[in-house]
Amino acid sequence: MKIYDRAGFPNPSRIRIVVAEKGLEDRVDYVSVDLIGAEHKQAPFLAINPSGKIPVLELEDGTQISESTAITEYLDNLDGTPTLTGTTPREKAMIHMMQKRAEVELMDGVDGYFHYATPGLGDAMIPYTSPDWAGRKEWGERQRDKAVRAMHQFDGMLQTRPYLAGDRFSMADITAFAALNFAGAAGIAIPADCNALTEWRERVSALPSVRNRSGQSFLPEDLRRFGF
Amino acid sequence: MKIYDRAGFPNPSRIRIVVAEKGLEDRVDYVSVDLIGAEHKQAPFLAINPSGKIPVLELEDGTQISESTAITEYLDNLDGTPTLTGTTPREKAMIHMMQKRAEVELMDGVDGYFHYATPGLGDAMIPYTSPDWAGRKEWGERQRDKAVRAMHQFDGMLQTRPYLAGDRFSMADITAFAALNFAGAAGIAIPADCNALTEWRERVSALPSVRNRSGQSFLPEDLRRFGF
Repeated sequence: MKIYDRAGFPNPSRIRIVVAEKGLEDRVDYVSVDLIGAEHKQAPFLAINPSGKIPVLELEDGTQISESTAITEYLDNLDGTPTLTGTTPREKAMIHMMQKRAEVELMDGVDGYFHYATPGLGDAMIPYTSPDWAGRKEWGERQRDKAVRAMHQFDGMLQTRPYLAGDRFSMADITAFAALNFAGAAGIAIPADCNALTEWRERVSALPSVRNRSGQSFLPEDLRRFGF
Repeated sequence: MKIYDRAGFPNPSRIRIVVAEKGLEDRVDYVSVDLIGAEHKQAPFLAINPSGKIPVLELEDGTQISESTAITEYLDNLDGTPTLTGTTPREKAMIHMMQKRAEVELMDGVDGYFHYATPGLGDAMIPYTSPDWAGRKEWGERQRDKAVRAMHQFDGMLQTRPYLAGDRFSMADITAFAALNFAGAAGIAIPADCNALTEWRERVSALPSVRNRSGQSFLPEDLRRFGF
């Protein structure tokens, strides 16, 4: 299988954790996409994913699967023993509920702040982030506020359960973990009173699939070049 | 089971189609939420779903599941024979990929246009739609443009396959169908050259789970009161 992504970036890091969790490292080749050069917004990449986003999983027969939730569903079910997306109806429901919230409220919130209220990925990406729009910066700041609200909300949940969707580490935790790394790189800190969220983050950081990753960081190193 | 929703509205209609597809009508009681009065933005409802959105599925033991994708995963897997969310890894992946696009690009696009660039649901909801934000209307119009781009994209896909995720009707079709009904009510027409999308919509309209619904319409009747 082939995965189009960029090491260290938020959504790519979700899938790299999934690949490690499922022991699939030897079955995946990575193709690096130049996000800083806006390669994902040009025609050749748009033919791979018309939504202009990474990561994309390409199967042996050429089928291209985008959207991290969809890629996770594929990889997690490949061995017939899903561990990240649930097995019972209730587990599946709780995981997809928290996955959606982690994505829309936390990940998308940080992403909107980063691209619209800060210099973001720099010059090549500016044309793709509505530079002439009067409401641009305020929208980005609202996205940051949404992300911080989600941190408080998740903190409340983690006071009564070890992982976001219940007793087990799942796809929802992976999304939230990647989003918090992104938040840190973009200058959005976890509020000081979110103790349960901070403790959960430390526990997730220590998981083998997150920790043991031969030289590849889940922190967006590239973003640091822009001063974050 | 109990479902908090409002008949005729976009996301509620998704779940009502799922309930009909799975033959679960006799096991569900509906609790109507006054969206036009902004009941879903007040404390009692926020205790049920902190995201302030319908529908919410409440199980017999009181567990509350929000997000339509999560509710669909629950109901579809309840009998051990999923028909709307896929069985093989590839089916699950294709369905979740198209489900996400239908939701973010089409449904959220129409929703953003309706609430930010038109009078939306009226006076009670105005305070929850950033009335003082300078970029408000332009943002809403960009959301409409995103929805129309998705219509063209989906039309292209439907030229080579009968349903959005492949050969079978799935959760992704339900989301896109509900979003197109919402688009029509909000004044966003399917572009005249999207023949495959129009033909698909007619086919979906004729499915028993969509057609045979004792007196309840999937068209947002409530919205008509506001002149749409």
